[in-house]
Amino acid sequence: MAEGDHAAPVPKPVPRAGGAAPRGGLKGDPAKRPFLQRFLGSLGRPMDDAQRARDVISMCHGLLSERGEVSGVRRATEILTAYRSLTHPARERFFDLLVAEFSPDPAEVARAAEAYAAEPSQANLTMLQGAVEPPRQELFRRLNLAPTATAVLVEMRRQLLATIEARPERIGIDADLAHLFRAWFNAGFLRLQRIDWRTSALVLERLIQYEAVHQIQGWRDLRRRLEADRRCYAFFHPAMPDEPLIFIEAALTRGLSGKVQPLLDPDSPVLDAANADCAIFYSITNCQEGLRGVSFGNFLIKSVVEDLQRNLSQLRTFATLSPIPGFVGWLKTAGSAAASPSPELAALLESIDSTEDSSWPSIATGLRSELQRLCAYYLLHAKLGRLPLDPVARFHLANGARLERLNWLGDTSAKGMRRSVGLMANYVYRLADVERHHEAYATDYKVIASHELERLARDASQPARRRRRSKA
Amino acid sequence: MAEGDHAAPVPKPVPRAGGAAPRGGLKGDPAKRPFLQRFLGSLGRPMDDAQRARDVISMCHGLLSERGEVSGVRRATEILTAYRSLTHPARERFFDLLVAEFSPDPAEVARAAEAYAAEPSQANLTMLQGAVEPPRQELFRRLNLAPTATAVLVEMRRQLLATIEARPERIGIDADLAHLFRAWFNAGFLRLQRIDWRTSALVLERLIQYEAVHQIQGWRDLRRRLEADRRCYAFFHPAMPDEPLIFIEAALTRGLSGKVQPLLDPDSPVLDAANADCAIFYSITNCQEGLRGVSFGNFLIKSVVEDLQRNLSQLRTFATLSPIPGFVGWLKTAGSAAASPSPELAALLESIDSTEDSSWPSIATGLRSELQRLCAYYLLHAKLGRLPLDPVARFHLANGARLERLNWLGDTSAKGMRRSVGLMANYVYRLADVERHHEAYATDYKVIASHELERLARDASQPARRRRRSKA
Amino acid sequence: MAEGDHAAPVPKPVPRAGGAAPRGGLKGDPAKRPFLQRFLGSLGRPMDDAQRARDVISMCHGLLSERGEVSGVRRATEILTAYRSLTHPARERFFDLLVAEFSPDPAEVARAAEAYAAEPSQANLTMLQGAVEPPRQELFRRLNLAPTATAVLVEMRRQLLATIEARPERIGIDADLAHLFRAWFNAGFLRLQRIDWRTSALVLERLIQYEAVHQIQGWRDLRRRLEADRRCYAFFHPAMPDEPLIFIEAALTRGLSGKVQPLLDPDSPVLDAANADCAIFYSITNCQEGLRGVSFGNFLIKSVVEDLQRNLSQLRTFATLSPIPGFVGWLKTAGSAAASPSPELAALLESIDSTEDSSWPSIATGLRSELQRLCAYYLLHAKLGRLPLDPVARFHLANGARLERLNWLGDTSAKGMRRSVGLMANYVYRLADVERHHEAYATDYKVIASHELERLARDASQPARRRRRSKA
Amino acid sequence: MAEGDHAAPVPKPVPRAGGAAPRGGLKGDPAKRPFLQRFLGSLGRPMDDAQRARDVISMCHGLLSERGEVSGVRRATEILTAYRSLTHPARERFFDLLVAEFSPDPAEVARAAEAYAAEPSQANLTMLQGAVEPPRQELFRRLNLAPTATAVLVEMRRQLLATIEARPERIGIDADLAHLFRAWFNAGFLRLQRIDWRTSALVLERLIQYEAVHQIQGWRDLRRRLEADRRCYAFFHPAMPDEPLIFIEAALTRGLSGKVQPLLDPDSPVLDAANADCAIFYSITNCQEGLRGVSFGNFLIKSVVEDLQRNLSQLRTFATLSPIPGFVGWLKTAGSAAASPSPELAALLESIDSTEDSSWPSIATGLRSELQRLCAYYLLHAKLGRLPLDPVARFHLANGARLERLNWLGDTSAKGMRRSVGLMANYVYRLADVERHHEAYATDYKVIASHELERLARDASQPARRRRRSKA
Repeated sequence: MAEGDHAAPVPKPVPRAGGAAPRGGLKGDPAKRPFLQRFLGSLGRPMDDAQRARDVISMCHGLLSERGEVSGVRRATEILTAYRSLTHPARERFFDLLVAEFSPDPAEVARAAEAYAAEPSQANLTMLQGAVEPPRQELFRRLNLAPTATAVLVEMRRQLLATIEARPERIGIDADLAHLFRAWFNAGFLRLQRIDWRTSALVLERLIQYEAVHQIQGWRDLRRRLEADRRCYAFFHPAMPDEPLIFIEAALTRGLSGKVQPLLDPDSPVLDAANADCAIFYSITNCQEGLRGVSFGNFLIKSVVEDLQRNLSQLRTFATLSPIPGFVGWLKTAGSAAASPSPELAALLESIDSTEDSSWPSIATGLRSELQRLCAYYLLHAKLGRLPLDPVARFHLANGARLERLNWLGDTSAKGMRRSVGLMANYVYRLADVERHHEAYATDYKVIASHELERLARDASQPARRRRRSKA
Repeated sequence: MAEGDHAAPVPKPVPRAGGAAPRGGLKGDPAKRPFLQRFLGSLGRPMDDAQRARDVISMCHGLLSERGEVSGVRRATEILTAYRSLTHPARERFFDLLVAEFSPDPAEVARAAEAYAAEPSQANLTMLQGAVEPPRQELFRRLNLAPTATAVLVEMRRQLLATIEARPERIGIDADLAHLFRAWFNAGFLRLQRIDWRTSALVLERLIQYEAVHQIQGWRDLRRRLEADRRCYAFFHPAMPDEPLIFIEAALTRGLSGKVQPLLDPDSPVLDAANADCAIFYSITNCQEGLRGVSFGNFLIKSVVEDLQRNLSQLRTFATLSPIPGFVGWLKTAGSAAASPSPELAALLESIDSTEDSSWPSIATGLRSELQRLCAYYLLHAKLGRLPLDPVARFHLANGARLERLNWLGDTSAKGMRRSVGLMANYVYRLADVERHHEAYATDYKVIASHELERLARDASQPARRRRRSKA
Repeated sequence: MAEGDHAAPVPKPVPRAGGAAPRGGLKGDPAKRPFLQRFLGSLGRPMDDAQRARDVISMCHGLLSERGEVSGVRRATEILTAYRSLTHPARERFFDLLVAEFSPDPAEVARAAEAYAAEPSQANLTMLQGAVEPPRQELFRRLNLAPTATAVLVEMRRQLLATIEARPERIGIDADLAHLFRAWFNAGFLRLQRIDWRTSALVLERLIQYEAVHQIQGWRDLRRRLEADRRCYAFFHPAMPDEPLIFIEAALTRGLSGKVQPLLDPDSPVLDAANADCAIFYSITNCQEGLRGVSFGNFLIKSVVEDLQRNLSQLRTFATLSPIPGFVGWLKTAGSAAASPSPELAALLESIDSTEDSSWPSIATGLRSELQRLCAYYLLHAKLGRLPLDPVARFHLANGARLERLNWLGDTSAKGMRRSVGLMANYVYRLADVERHHEAYATDYKVIASHELERLARDASQPARRRRRSKA
Repeated sequence: MAEGDHAAPVPKPVPRAGGAAPRGGLKGDPAKRPFLQRFLGSLGRPMDDAQRARDVISMCHGLLSERGEVSGVRRATEILTAYRSLTHPARERFFDLLVAEFSPDPAEVARAAEAYAAEPSQANLTMLQGAVEPPRQELFRRLNLAPTATAVLVEMRRQLLATIEARPERIGIDADLAHLFRAWFNAGFLRLQRIDWRTSALVLERLIQYEAVHQIQGWRDLRRRLEADRRCYAFFHPAMPDEPLIFIEAALTRGLSGKVQPLLDPDSPVLDAANADCAIFYSITNCQEGLRGVSFGNFLIKSVVEDLQRNLSQLRTFATLSPIPGFVGWLKTAGSAAASPSPELAALLESIDSTEDSSWPSIATGLRSELQRLCAYYLLHAKLGRLPLDPVARFHLANGARLERLNWLGDTSAKGMRRSVGLMANYVYRLADVERHHEAYATDYKVIASHELERLARDASQPARRRRRSKA
């Protein structure tokens, strides 16, 4: 059918293993799917949710019981189609049955454990390993035979995770999916792709939906973010080619940017990328809640820095412009004890959630140096165990970045005000240093920061009185 | 950088996660790899193999001990480069150390097993699952971060399997690799691609190397196999885009082909595919010994039949032309008891390994009907447990094919003579039937065969005398 | 370098002939382009437009005078960059100089013509052909060496055409560009591509800009037009991969659609394409004014019908839903003489440009049968010379379509009212008939129409009285 | 049909304008092509060649007479299929009819020429241009509508050119094809692609066929030429994606290579490209005789040098290793007069065509310095008009290269001996200089050469006596 470019992909791809991979969904010849037809046909009728869940589970048993895999693709396709049609209560029941009927058999585990205890041979270990692996894992592996199955399974885990706090016994299902996803989404299999205005609308639309740090206000806003002085990259998995897994947005600038609103302004002038010396990462978004815990964030940043260096050799600095999400919370609680805020700051904190957006910068200005000192102290010394309390700091420091600078009025949005009184941080990525920084952080929990930040944090920890005096 | 087709792939791919993916090998800036340089630099010198293996293993510990993954790509790349440079004795030592130092800790397993026995909770199960999983698995997952790592790990398993009979304690390493490969090479991730004369020489050259059923005698032979009346398909994995995993060759013919030599003749005339009504699969080859046990053969045949149906709607029959590898062996042993061969046949069997190639057809002709009956009997009734004794029969019957026809002088090569006195079998694939056939086979071990084959087998099991009489 | 798909395009494309093909524009190392720098650097200064045009023309002479082509790419790039920076008056001057200095030399033409007249040999013909070919043609051919030149030359013709009525002496420039474009944009070189939500935003944005028949109201509207029950195709040229040349939009429907507003409604439900039996072409847009007269409309429709038939075998009817742009105009002039409209219709026509949008359908309803008859008459019998007067009818009939049906209230927009009192027409494309229909049209000017349309037209040409009587 | 990569080319390409573009040939529904069937069906029968040519010509008239283009694709396809089936005598007749019936009408040309002479207006010029353009041009344009037509027309010109010396009246046909090809194959439309072992076998096979400078001895030889220390590039046209138009082969070396046999040795060790500082172009082949005179050789070299510089920044020198095809011929004729060869050399020249391959180097060695001087003289001073006599020198000097060095025993093959006594030349391409060198050559016919070459040439032009003395 498709003529394509005759010089194009060779060998020729044909429909993927096991059948039609229709655009946009699971399809097939209905005449050949009596079960599914009956199942889906019943959706409008007052059939028991429990019954429907049971039906899907029965199909799962069928898929597993197959000694061969001849009907695997068809069955897997039917199961996933049926699963996606389940109502919320039916899905709940389905998860319960996944726990009840696809977990390891305790008696068998006990027997295998005893045998291994008696003789810790490789054979007994293999038996024990087999006994503790839930049949669910093989079930999920076989379900993956269906076209577009991977995306459905990722979605299944998302739905599962939303229930897991209330139903901790489901943690085993989650563990099985997470185990598989760690193998399937091994960073070695991911593809870094540049996103720009030549990217498909299908993918771009998802960026609009997913962007979590600085919301995208429609196509015009998106377009500005993909202009010649912006860069956007995402990781994709070969089995989910239209679904970004994680993406990062960067602005090419002259000098280290300290304010995010100008970067987000859709009407800002487009600079010539050839004049930029700095790449500012101002947003990084994990798209797939169902891949929680399967991390690729640090790969993304490093890969993007490498690609930018290759293609824009004039860039000298690679840095983030990051929120400091925990600062105000800390100030209001632990921080107030540690750092004795001035009465003016205490008043500001009291009213911070109700302050009018437009007025707060003028209110805060008088507190600038106090806030900067306290924020530096927060980032360098506030801890969660031995790690930094601030989650964004934890992420970038663990990746080997250096905390470089605080930016006054960096984020003048209401959200920016309420979480960090508008302060933002730059973390700098120097590829030559990231391993060393990472080691220092991973081994000694060391927070690598600029002298400026260290000085600010030192000042903050001195009594206010002495500080004033020292300035005199 | 590359201009390419401006209408081309969007989003743009950039070098894969974690670094340069150089064509054809692991590379990097040597200045940054003092370890590897030292290691590889020492290769010429009389350093202890054991020491080298130890060095690689130390790097493996380093890769695993990393709390983060910041240096994972670099370390994984170094390890795999070093591994590939190991001599045979050093590799042996390396495998030993993988067993000794990356297996589960028996004491920990025992503790976790006890805890689970005392209370079979999900938490204790999770702990036990953790305890029985060898650290090797995580090691292999991290090694996969390196560019082209997947192919190296598949090769590692191939090398391992060659030693495992002599060193059964290494079965645990094999189990870990096989476990990962079953996830990574899930059939849902494979891509079926048509192979033809537009395919890259790199891939085609591998077909020449790998073809195991009917050897390819160079480029001219290969070219004939890719002409307009031939079809070739292979499965590929996205992480090994130049490496076919398995491939199948088909001839488009008028009528069911019963002789393989005409199909293989590079000088045979090329037929117009539009006139063909039959697709004959005459060869199917697994390419990667390192993926042993990770099966995709039945997916391949079904997918290829589907693709052929879509594109060549005039095809009516999809069938194999298959060897019967176990027939002569069976005849010489169990068969002779079960079927009392005639004295002429007994004499033929005696001399079969020394018979001159050119003379045997005439010798065998007188035995034609006896051989056909015995062969039908062999295929339908000779068993290994409850399964067919013939391995090729096992494969196709398990896939849901039907044993259709025996072909006299089907394979007139010396090999064909020695294993089946030249007989070949056609197995027919009808998509509408494969599930039903497969079920009958998987459940009741039923051999689905044509009436003709059943009749021949019946005749074979009657005493020769009675058989003759019944014809009178 | 780019990782991409390792199975991907082979042979590898590298930057196109003669230099960097930068995304989105003509670029280069400014240090190496002293002329261009000076030229562009002067843009802000009060330099004479005439001087600038003269500078560009001098560069053109330089490009042509080159005996070899070694510096052609650089010079062509500079000229086109400079051309694009010209102000309107400078461009006017540039065109004048193209006429004055790059036209054939009358004296040379005269000499060659005389020689040919004296002896009409092939040699003399060749000389005469050389003499009448303006040097502009070779100039344009050489300009095309620059990256993205083709698009700039198409744009140059667009700008030229806008001036040509006032400056008829420029028709020679137009003829040269048209001559080249007819070769370059030979339909054999065009690529038909499906446009959907996976298409790049860059191309989709242009559809929004270009759509001329039923304007696209932003991304949401566009998205509806690319859903599962819609199809969109465009022709592209390899040298302008991001620029659609012409595109067509179709709706998949059950039954022949007669009303366009439901098809355009962004909130209409999406039908299952598998249930459609009809493809309705409701819009076809030529995108490039600069390619005026280089026609590919009829290729597009035929190719699209073929592709739809191949992929959606259940489709039975391929038809347009077309405006009838000339109907009201004709009614007001020639039509009123030929067809003596009723007083009510005359009143409607009088007020048609001022009628409130919402009220007109009710006003018109009483005139339905009269309007339908007159419209049928108009389409079948109103002529421009021997061809149909209606331009849309001319286009589809020349393509071999059949005029099938008139649709009352087919287009209820103000525009639809004012040009055809809301009537729309269906033209049906049957591939088996188009050649025959086309021949009849091309040879005998025959308007192929359905019996229904013919009957309506017959009725219109009878006196109203007799018509009424015949119904009694 | 093809699933392909879901992330893949967007917009999706569909079959090209006007119908099926079957792989490898012109096809179609025979039921719809009664003419062609009759025509091809008659091929076996004793029908008149003249009649067949007449039939094809009649179809050509039909294609042209079409007022619209509705049946153009079908007709064009039929004509080209019929053309390709013509026997040699029928093709001769076909060309004769193309001259007789598709040339301009002398009377019409005369009228138009008179009108223009009377009034040299744009309108009259346009009319004259129309009159002198042979109808063949429009015919060829319409023929190009057929799938794969471009390749067939290029082949048609190849066949035509083979006859043109004997039939000079056909020069008009050639001129028409050449005119179209200059537009269609405008260098701006060509794509430079890297050729390597990942390239399709289809393209690689053509390199083996086409290579004209140093014949490729099968797949093993080819493979060596595509190893890591070799580079190969070709130009392709979008309408002939499997047909290289011209290709060039380079070896990456340390230092300037002076001997070609080591470069061609399939068993030579593969060097690490990273250690190379020099790219030696040792072969450049025009593949399409039918594109004679449509030059892209100099674009190819410049584009390749640019691509190599971008990707292998360590390369310092880009040079050819070129034959000197005219040296011996010149020595034997004009050279002997100009340069009075020594008696030993005269003897060598006498026997050069019969000399045993293995013995000649030793014979020649004593003449080394004389031969080098004479060869330098030949390259710098032997002329054809004002241009260098040596055709290879003309090509590279016109491209802006510099004649750098002569290489003793550069080509030790029999061919190398017979045309240049084994001498080869290096021409160096420095992008920064090519324009300047080209200008000097194009304007003043200046041969740019190294001091060494100039010195050798000077020595050659001095009387032998004086030369000897000056050494004393």
